[in-house]
Amino acid sequence: MSKKYKVIFQPSGSRGEVQEGKTLMEAAQQLGVDLEAICGGKGTCGKCKVRVEEGYFEKDAIDSRMAHLSPVSEVEQKFIKKEDGPNIRLACSTTLHGDVKIFVPEKSRAGKQIVRKAAKEISIALDPAVRKYFVELEKPTLHDLAKGDVERLVSFLKKEYDLGDLSIDFTVLTGLQDTLRKGDWKVTASVWMGKEIVKVEPGFVEVNYGIAVDVGTTTVAAYLCEMGTGKVVATESMMNPQVPYGEDVMSRITYAMTNDDGLETMQNAIISGINELLVKVTAGLKENGAAGPDTIMDMTVVFNTAMHHIFLGFNPEYIGRSPFIPAIQNDINIKARDLGININRASYVHVLPIEAGFVGADNVGVLIAEEPYNQDEKVLIIDIGTNGELLLGNRDAVCSTSCATGPAFEGAQIKFGMRAAPGAIEKVIIDPETKDPKFKVIGKADWHTHVEKVEAKGICGSGIIDVVAEMFKAGVIDKSGRFVSDLNTPRVRTATDGKPEYVLAWADETSIGSDITVTQGDVRALQLAKGALYAGAKLMMQKMGIEKLDRVILAGAFGSFIDKEAALTLGMFPDCDIDKVYAVGNAAGDGARMALLNLGKRKEARERARWLEFVEIAVEPEFEKEFMMAMHIPHMKDKFTNLKNMLEKSGSPVQVKG
Amino acid sequence: MSKKYKVIFQPSGSRGEVQEGKTLMEAAQQLGVDLEAICGGKGTCGKCKVRVEEGYFEKDAIDSRMAHLSPVSEVEQKFIKKEDGPNIRLACSTTLHGDVKIFVPEKSRAGKQIVRKAAKEISIALDPAVRKYFVELEKPTLHDLAKGDVERLVSFLKKEYDLGDLSIDFTVLTGLQDTLRKGDWKVTASVWMGKEIVKVEPGFVEVNYGIAVDVGTTTVAAYLCEMGTGKVVATESMMNPQVPYGEDVMSRITYAMTNDDGLETMQNAIISGINELLVKVTAGLKENGAAGPDTIMDMTVVFNTAMHHIFLGFNPEYIGRSPFIPAIQNDINIKARDLGININRASYVHVLPIEAGFVGADNVGVLIAEEPYNQDEKVLIIDIGTNGELLLGNRDAVCSTSCATGPAFEGAQIKFGMRAAPGAIEKVIIDPETKDPKFKVIGKADWHTHVEKVEAKGICGSGIIDVVAEMFKAGVIDKSGRFVSDLNTPRVRTATDGKPEYVLAWADETSIGSDITVTQGDVRALQLAKGALYAGAKLMMQKMGIEKLDRVILAGAFGSFIDKEAALTLGMFPDCDIDKVYAVGNAAGDGARMALLNLGKRKEARERARWLEFVEIAVEPEFEKEFMMAMHIPHMKDKFTNLKNMLEKSGSPVQVKG
Repeated sequence: MSKKYKVIFQPSGSRGEVQEGKTLMEAAQQLGVDLEAICGGKGTCGKCKVRVEEGYFEKDAIDSRMAHLSPVSEVEQKFIKKEDGPNIRLACSTTLHGDVKIFVPEKSRAGKQIVRKAAKEISIALDPAVRKYFVELEKPTLHDLAKGDVERLVSFLKKEYDLGDLSIDFTVLTGLQDTLRKGDWKVTASVWMGKEIVKVEPGFVEVNYGIAVDVGTTTVAAYLCEMGTGKVVATESMMNPQVPYGEDVMSRITYAMTNDDGLETMQNAIISGINELLVKVTAGLKENGAAGPDTIMDMTVVFNTAMHHIFLGFNPEYIGRSPFIPAIQNDINIKARDLGININRASYVHVLPIEAGFVGADNVGVLIAEEPYNQDEKVLIIDIGTNGELLLGNRDAVCSTSCATGPAFEGAQIKFGMRAAPGAIEKVIIDPETKDPKFKVIGKADWHTHVEKVEAKGICGSGIIDVVAEMFKAGVIDKSGRFVSDLNTPRVRTATDGKPEYVLAWADETSIGSDITVTQGDVRALQLAKGALYAGAKLMMQKMGIEKLDRVILAGAFGSFIDKEAALTLGMFPDCDIDKVYAVGNAAGDGARMALLNLGKRKEARERARWLEFVEIAVEPEFEKEFMMAMHIPHMKDKFTNLKNMLEKSGSPVQVKG
Repeated sequence: MSKKYKVIFQPSGSRGEVQEGKTLMEAAQQLGVDLEAICGGKGTCGKCKVRVEEGYFEKDAIDSRMAHLSPVSEVEQKFIKKEDGPNIRLACSTTLHGDVKIFVPEKSRAGKQIVRKAAKEISIALDPAVRKYFVELEKPTLHDLAKGDVERLVSFLKKEYDLGDLSIDFTVLTGLQDTLRKGDWKVTASVWMGKEIVKVEPGFVEVNYGIAVDVGTTTVAAYLCEMGTGKVVATESMMNPQVPYGEDVMSRITYAMTNDDGLETMQNAIISGINELLVKVTAGLKENGAAGPDTIMDMTVVFNTAMHHIFLGFNPEYIGRSPFIPAIQNDINIKARDLGININRASYVHVLPIEAGFVGADNVGVLIAEEPYNQDEKVLIIDIGTNGELLLGNRDAVCSTSCATGPAFEGAQIKFGMRAAPGAIEKVIIDPETKDPKFKVIGKADWHTHVEKVEAKGICGSGIIDVVAEMFKAGVIDKSGRFVSDLNTPRVRTATDGKPEYVLAWADETSIGSDITVTQGDVRALQLAKGALYAGAKLMMQKMGIEKLDRVILAGAFGSFIDKEAALTLGMFPDCDIDKVYAVGNAAGDGARMALLNLGKRKEARERARWLEFVEIAVEPEFEKEFMMAMHIPHMKDKFTNLKNMLEKSGSPVQVKG
């Protein structure tokens, strides 16, 4: 048995005993302390800086604060700068060898994500997988000797509702006799897919709840629906509780591969998280007498392939490396109790099909929600999450692909990047003359124009898209993404790495005590991300012989908050009439809801997931070349007629090819 | 919180703390002490007599031994006789109010049942529900992008073995990827009913184990079979661990109804018991490398309706009272993991159908094992367990009924009755001249003829049938069951209740320190039991227009040990050529094995269970009259031509109608 040491985290005050040799990040996870772990503790993002407050006195240590921790590693030397101040360590790279008190600076706190997955109205014919049937049996007599309770129930359902060949879940069977007698032979039977009885309740029960869940890499959203009306009764969302094990898909796959019980730990985290979400989302049902997740009769779920595998307890290793083979690609129905999901235990969780190793059920959700296969217009659908997924086509054919955009669109790999949490700068306008910005901070109602102090903390995904587009429009950077020199403004200066940076907020406007800047590196990260999307879309267009997009749909957790003009300005997608660019919000979640409410949509998902063509863009020989050209803003060569007109109208001094 | 007291049981030495107010029987159950509980603790059998050794000293108590127990109840006054000795209490009727030391006399110990459920050879076409298929997949490449591991496996099984539309159990799916890679893409898939993959193992696996389980009220037997050859690989049996909660079906139903967690307790007991049995029965498989219950791919199970309901966790209350409605009468397949049965967790437990409220899957097992519906001969099948079940008929029609024989055939309700455990007298011959008996004791090789001391302890079921038949043949009792007076032998004497009794063993031949006798009450109990069987058979014969039996089959846990001549002598069934009377042993278990090895037998069971006609004999107006006449030995009026000839040949002085 190894020793345990006392660890205290400030400012939260969380404290507890932690095993010797654990990292400070593991200690934070164990004690539930809010600490960034964007790279999943691999020492590649440098976002988990903490300050050592006390190491308790130890005579021989030169600095007593460090006496109880491992020596400073090379990784830490790389990331920790003088301006970070004294006693800073990387939590992921520092192991515990004594009692310590640790301070987590605001910058290193993950914060509570602002969840932007509200349910939009969808209109769909109702044909849910689970339906309720009222049953009224005759009281049994001695003459019924050769008939059991089940047989009497099943024969009634056959006679009255034409439900032939019904089976009954074993856990329903165990309580059936008492339920029938409690209801005085009047009960309501819930039947799944017209073939299995998954619940029997005494008396007449009309409401029939189902839930659609969208498990994003970062955010989990749950939509509770009444399946008899299709209405969304309640919506809840939460951070994906797997975030502490890695902020992106690859970090979590790595976590599963490098920790003995890594997969189990992450699976348990998401299952327990969803169970908590189920309790919250059903909390309002109490007036109906039948409260709690147990009243939920059906569930659909979408996610990317890695979240899919981890949720289901499948080893995600093989989808993370060539030839990227998933465990299963078709849809699957799993008994809720086998997964440990606390809806009605006899009910099923319907997992939508995935497309390929890196294009998941979430993209299938987008597909059936937007139905490009039913349209004449050639549409490009960009689903921007932690990965970027593209769908392109119309009723003739649809292609899909996945682009390794990296997490820049979500604020990661950006010097002051952060998630869309309070304190994040989310919208920016830069004056082309003065180069001074106005910005809007999440949690504040108004735009900030230097009059009042706001507590800006960093820049979120939509903010970084805005600011870089604005920097381009204001002539701060050129089309290659380079900073324009000699601008004669204190906003542009040389950073400690010798490269230029743009000061978006001065230290006194922030809550982190330092200027918030956009660096040359940040601009490059965004160029890489948008270049990947653009090149992917372009190659798909070439493959399908599409010259011009009729319509662009921006979907995803923050799809409805992205500024479509900024996205077009950057060249996130090929030129398109800005009036034909739509932000549809969480289309993956919409698809999950549709599959919940309509069995035809499940069939559509199954068939269309196989019908569409998956294109592995990154292996196309043209990709590198297209990618390089697409890094330019908006593009090195392609014409942007619509953008050109738009910029001219706005009076921007910047010229683009049109 | 109520108090707990120290309780010590002798001679086992078991000790522990028991809650105040619990009965000594509950204390014995809690501490795992072997104590008879034939009536289930209802105070009706008087078999749980214990001696209070110490109650620890308490000044005010007249007898300190009694100071820590409840006062002697009326029930106890009824059962406890002077000859029982001092300080005797009924464990079921005495509650705890202080520390005590209790001695359990040998007579009150249940003993370890001699299990007589060996598997006989059966010959049957092999068509098991689970079959194994060898699979050899191509290694996946980037070109397989649109195919998951499951789809590749399923498509191979379809192509090579014509298994269309296969599903896969979720728990198999979770490990599939690693298994495929561990086996280098060569695996063995176990497929249930041609439609669901329930196991995937790396490499080529040929052996395919299944298990048939017969859950008797008293004994549980398990037959491990290799389903590729049909061979019985191993057999194990044990006492039904529910025995402490009641020795017969009605006692257990009562226990479930009168204890809050009674059903759960008994269900857990049988499930854990079977799991222990599975470990024992697979212990010999280790040489195959794949040991343990996990290698068992399929299971069938038979039992009476009460054991059926308790095993499955169904409330047994409603089958115990009119109109005797079971939860389900058809066969059912339940995931082993849903039941907590530790065979391969994705496999199913197949529960055979039951016939009616009191005729269970065990009788269906007998039915498909003996197949009366395929025969011209009119056959009566008597399945003698704790209840008696009858099947009568041939290919034209078969009737079934259940007779409340009571537990006399198993040695209960008999003064010196006991189960078939070591020390039980199981065979008896009485000299018609001297009226002296010879007897055979279980655990001793030879017949006892007073030369040596044997440790007889009581009389088991086959023993009581033998001794009463012999008493009749030797003229000790007459055809009405009354003792013949003035026999001039010390073997027949007047008991303390003023009624006659026959001394089968003198005190010095026993291990219990007293004579073992057969009382007038014992003879009456046996007459009641055999009368119920006979009347049931007779009424069924009348109903079906059968005048004479072509064949009689004695089945059941001790069916093969019963002396068929003794049974005919007593008139357990209508007269029949003794050469046409067969003892077939555990036919219910044979049926379970057949259903394990051949799917056609499951279908046969399903159809024949509905095809045969259940007759509720006890409600027939003729029953009482027939029952009264059938109490006589062999019968008051019916002719026994075959028996008459048999007795004449044997030189018996007794005359019967022929």
